[in-house]
Amino acid sequence: MKEILVFGHKCPDTDSICSSIVMANLQTKLRGMEVTPCRLGEINEETKYALKYFNVEEPRLLEKVEEGQIVVLVDHSEFSQSVEGIENAKIDTVVDHHRINDFRTSEPLFYYAQPVGCTSTLLFELYKLNNVEIEPTIAGLMLSSIISDTLLLKSPTTTLKDKNALEELAKIANVDINQYGLEMLKAGTNLDKYIEEELIHLDAKTVEKEDIKYVIAQVNTVSIPDVMKRKEKLEREINKEILAKGLSLFVFVITDIVNSNSEAIILGDRTDAISKEYEIKDNIAVMPGVVSRKKQILPLVEKNI
Amino acid sequence: MKEILVFGHKCPDTDSICSSIVMANLQTKLRGMEVTPCRLGEINEETKYALKYFNVEEPRLLEKVEEGQIVVLVDHSEFSQSVEGIENAKIDTVVDHHRINDFRTSEPLFYYAQPVGCTSTLLFELYKLNNVEIEPTIAGLMLSSIISDTLLLKSPTTTLKDKNALEELAKIANVDINQYGLEMLKAGTNLDKYIEEELIHLDAKTVEKEDIKYVIAQVNTVSIPDVMKRKEKLEREINKEILAKGLSLFVFVITDIVNSNSEAIILGDRTDAISKEYEIKDNIAVMPGVVSRKKQILPLVEKNI
Repeated sequence: MKEILVFGHKCPDTDSICSSIVMANLQTKLRGMEVTPCRLGEINEETKYALKYFNVEEPRLLEKVEEGQIVVLVDHSEFSQSVEGIENAKIDTVVDHHRINDFRTSEPLFYYAQPVGCTSTLLFELYKLNNVEIEPTIAGLMLSSIISDTLLLKSPTTTLKDKNALEELAKIANVDINQYGLEMLKAGTNLDKYIEEELIHLDAKTVEKEDIKYVIAQVNTVSIPDVMKRKEKLEREINKEILAKGLSLFVFVITDIVNSNSEAIILGDRTDAISKEYEIKDNIAVMPGVVSRKKQILPLVEKNI
Repeated sequence: MKEILVFGHKCPDTDSICSSIVMANLQTKLRGMEVTPCRLGEINEETKYALKYFNVEEPRLLEKVEEGQIVVLVDHSEFSQSVEGIENAKIDTVVDHHRINDFRTSEPLFYYAQPVGCTSTLLFELYKLNNVEIEPTIAGLMLSSIISDTLLLKSPTTTLKDKNALEELAKIANVDINQYGLEMLKAGTNLDKYIEEELIHLDAKTVEKEDIKYVIAQVNTVSIPDVMKRKEKLEREINKEILAKGLSLFVFVITDIVNSNSEAIILGDRTDAISKEYEIKDNIAVMPGVVSRKKQILPLVEKNI
């Protein structure tokens, strides 16, 4: 049998990386054959912190897949967020917590999705369902995913299942959720090492809807003003990206993980999709209480674009 | 909270009808509110036999849904096989055993699919997972679905899960699988009461792929020659349908449920999608051992069209 590859979305966040490693572990045990975790991009500082803490290697970089390659997708299914060649791969399994859009298969598959805060919460269920023991390292990766995706259970995407999974996983991994979680999240807010061109791609989701294409990117910080100091250069890079990719809209969300607020830099022809609900001044919209791209920003843009 | 509706695909078969009733039962218990089963078309003779045997009412006919209607889909997700207005409904939950194609949501959802023979096999799992007791009537509906979709476990779509579920359900419902199953399947082979126009729509799946649209319809029989006596009239109706709907291909599969073989009437501009693998003579392809549209005919057409 051919090698099976597991991976999350492009511009990987902690859930995409950790859930790939976790799912490869589970699938290896269930199938009795080696299943390989991969990544579709550079690993961010937050994820590096988690991998180092639990002493886990980075998954290998995957640039494209051949026709017929058997793949397992975690934390995404949209083709535009997946690997080159995904249209002609054999998609065997998907575990995700997003909507379904821009996705199709030619054969039946295992697809498990729920509207929870994090993919790892569903993987946690699958370990239990299949009576597979969760090792402390695997528990550590899952809890890192949950902390990252729910911003320590503060995001409106958080469900009771995420909370319960996190508590149980913390016991297995033997970590203090708040202490470890805040350290991990803070590690991800060190944006100084990135040039502006990198910052706008760090965690960027491209959405295509009929003939409209737009990007919603997000960075976490402990100081929005610190990031806004780089506004001029960020705008220059965003405008370059809009031209290069033919985008109608680019929303660059800067989220304060301590106070749970965001401000966004908004550029493109279709800024009206945001300005219907938030005043835009000097290309900036202030969004009090907004931390979730999926639950708060994406539905707003979807509705108005 | 608004009423929640559960339904399977258009041109409903036994799995689509019975799984709707079963899922409405499960969801009513889980949500603590009435969830209503519906149907998207006339009930066939096989399904009527099952409903009568277990003394269950036909679900109500649904012609379209309003914008924002909360819906639960079973046994399908493709919009082209669903109700009018589905694009603007709120799809809350899907339980299915088909591929994913022509389907999208604007929000995360519960989606549970596995490549098993029947939707009811997955519903059986969900009862167990949620520790909900299965009443004998509900067990009877689930086992009818499994017998229908797997042709009494003979179809190549059958998995160990279907087999195990069927055995356990038969105990709960207290029926003899083979005796009841053959009677039910035979009830569905009484095609005399249908005119040709009805026959070609009885269990027809429309597939759209870019600008190509085709139909694969299927009927069960105990005598293929009996159905073939009506070939001329069937061809006339199929050709009318091709013109009216702009179809590239219409495959009308006649399946012998006793001997597990099929013959198909094949019309349209793209009969080459079939003739690459089966000789077509007088518009007829003989297909030994073929009983499954999903596993045997659809992949073949997909590959060649």
